[in-house]
Amino acid sequence: MNVMTIAPRSFHDAATDGLTPAQLETVLRQVGAERYHNRHPFHHKMTSGALSKLEMRAWALNRYCYQAVIPRKDATILARAEDPAFRAEWRKRIEDHDGDDGWSGGIARWLYLATSLGLDADAVKSERLALPATRFAVGAYLSFCANRTLLEAVASSLTELFSPVIIGERVPAMLAKYDYITDDTLAYFKKRPEQASRDSDFALAYVVSHADTPERQQSVIDALVFKCDILWAMLDALEHAYGGAGHIPPGAYREDGT
Amino acid sequence: MNVMTIAPRSFHDAATDGLTPAQLETVLRQVGAERYHNRHPFHHKMTSGALSKLEMRAWALNRYCYQAVIPRKDATILARAEDPAFRAEWRKRIEDHDGDDGWSGGIARWLYLATSLGLDADAVKSERLALPATRFAVGAYLSFCANRTLLEAVASSLTELFSPVIIGERVPAMLAKYDYITDDTLAYFKKRPEQASRDSDFALAYVVSHADTPERQQSVIDALVFKCDILWAMLDALEHAYGGAGHIPPGAYREDGT
Repeated sequence: MNVMTIAPRSFHDAATDGLTPAQLETVLRQVGAERYHNRHPFHHKMTSGALSKLEMRAWALNRYCYQAVIPRKDATILARAEDPAFRAEWRKRIEDHDGDDGWSGGIARWLYLATSLGLDADAVKSERLALPATRFAVGAYLSFCANRTLLEAVASSLTELFSPVIIGERVPAMLAKYDYITDDTLAYFKKRPEQASRDSDFALAYVVSHADTPERQQSVIDALVFKCDILWAMLDALEHAYGGAGHIPPGAYREDGT
Repeated sequence: MNVMTIAPRSFHDAATDGLTPAQLETVLRQVGAERYHNRHPFHHKMTSGALSKLEMRAWALNRYCYQAVIPRKDATILARAEDPAFRAEWRKRIEDHDGDDGWSGGIARWLYLATSLGLDADAVKSERLALPATRFAVGAYLSFCANRTLLEAVASSLTELFSPVIIGERVPAMLAKYDYITDDTLAYFKKRPEQASRDSDFALAYVVSHADTPERQQSVIDALVFKCDILWAMLDALEHAYGGAGHIPPGAYREDGT
């Protein structure tokens, strides 16, 4: 059931004339330049050193929900891919996040980041204290990869094209501006740029070669916009709940542990 | 595919001992008393007359996405119901929202509300200017009704138990506090209390009689919490984007029409 066809969005109508692969790549990179979450005020607040510990913890706890669903998202894509060579490449993503035994990959490293900030591991893993808006965004990402075309699902991963940039901004700033954050805390980010580059090179090559009609080109542009919206909405929700005024919704994480 | 099993939430662990139908109804009404969106600051701002016209329009435009999906949500429930008598009752909901010809029911009346506020009908219907967070919340509701048990899907409709209250607060305040809102604008709300009472009486009777184990009772309580989270998150997103500071995400509705 295609539950996600709620509101189609268009971005660059230029695509209706058809783009060369190089032009398509340029448009995709433009989407990132305009909409990737390194442009979000919450990210700027983080890199400027102005996040409260509550905000930092809430960020780690909520982002865990996203990290934890990535292998399921990738397995969803794997399950839809008919080409063994594609699957062999794509399954590396699952290995990266789960590791050999489920708890020695990226998810475990994110959990370590969260517990290093003082959060309880079981509370983080239960996801019960995450913002509902985080869960809705993460669920929308899973639904998208299950219900849209394989090409769109692959295209939605292309935010990884931009992740080395945000990690390059985030890590030095977090180490410099927050005395409770150490190199050790941020082990997750050490592995990511190399993995993300490998993965996004593959996904980008797949997308530009398979998006061979104007309609498919529009669909992959829209898929990347959608994915940027997911990441943006997650930071909006954090900022609203834990920033200045503070509007923590019922049941979500609070400093006093309730 | 059960894409919504991202984070189970519990509310009243008392249910693990089992509740009588009357006790279960009491707990469900308590969920509403604590978490229904008539407790949200955006609702209070609306009833106090303090919403800007931008906020009022954004509310109508975003809420349209929710209204528009209701008959699809109800058709999803209908498709899963094996009892013809249940279906005959439940399909009234679809008739209420679509009317005889698709555009003479609740959705059309909501669209009228939106256009009365100065919004363009096609822009509203396209849903392209809605907040991504609205779409993710609405999508989560659809997914929930498609992927959880029929009992949980029915229970998630029980926010209607509380809608006559919020409508009773909203309508007189909107008429009194905003000179651009007339009785005519609010035609949608005239029909809703009677329909909602009929529907929620039926749904409540179904839920309390079918939630006949502690596990099922917990599941229906959690379903109602989930649904309250949906409505709450929609107002959080509106407040964040259009309230005080104003953090309208890329691509969403702006007063200048971009």
